Amino acid sequence: MNALSPLGMVSELPSDIQTNTARDADERTDYFVERDGMKFAGTHLLVDLWGARNLSDPAHIDAALREAALIAGATILHSHFHHFTPNGGVSGVVVLAESHISIHTWPERDFAAVDIFMCGACDPHRSIPVLQQAFSPERIDLDEQRRGRVY
Amino acid sequence: MNALSPLGMVSELPSDIQTNTARDADERTDYFVERDGMKFAGTHLLVDLWGARNLSDPAHIDAALREAALIAGATILHSHFHHFTPNGGVSGVVVLAESHISIHTWPERDFAAVDIFMCGACDPHRSIPVLQQAFSPERIDLDEQRRGRVY
Repeated sequence: MNALSPLGMVSELPSDIQTNTARDADERTDYFVERDGMKFAGTHLLVDLWGARNLSDPAHIDAALREAALIAGATILHSHFHHFTPNGGVSGVVVLAESHISIHTWPERDFAAVDIFMCGACDPHRSIPVLQQAFSPERIDLDEQRRGRVY
Repeated sequence: MNALSPLGMVSELPSDIQTNTARDADERTDYFVERDGMKFAGTHLLVDLWGARNLSDPAHIDAALREAALIAGATILHSHFHHFTPNGGVSGVVVLAESHISIHTWPERDFAAVDIFMCGACDPHRSIPVLQQAFSPERIDLDEQRRGRVY
């Protein structure tokens, strides 16, 4: 693919569909969590990194996101990263049993948008120091969303 | 993988890293967009679907998200879906040149959390009717975030 089609383009790669029993297989369990008097599906952190470094190296980014996932207690199922030219930006995602971590970088602006969406017993806040270590942002804009709030 | 490890587990699958020139290759361009007097990296819709159907079929979900991406004008680079047992939930992501669409479903609660993050000339709002058609939610909670706001 050398150009963006305004109508959208489909990758020749077929989708991967994988069956996985990583979640609790013992019984039909309600996977929503209860915390602070709220019941919800999971915690989603929207993390914008400004004045950041190392935003053009897919291998470094891959390793950082995997470490971020593991330190939060997540289970990594799959990851995929794209490296764009000429600006060197990277887009990618780590699919977790507990949801996902994604990143999109704009090296030309020293900016990256990271999403850390985790359910169950994971704590996505534990991932933040890993991002700080890996990308040395001068500033982080952090927004926490509780997805799927029942009450 | 038959159980969640509290310390996290690493999939035996290596990461895919792909170099791609889908973005404008002619010159070093500022990929941030300007709209409504704001300059920002992209629009991120957080879409919670309640009372939804067809949340256990990975092939159906895959097709729906691909259609959602194309109708918004996005370029599909890769997709990957996991199907969990026994609750039948699906987690997956479509990686786009313009960022990503992700989904996590909880069929036991008729709930799904969808993220549509798009940059450039794409309009993620065009994806919403596709989600309505594919999943017939009784209610949609929609939150729009502008990621990477410069001003």
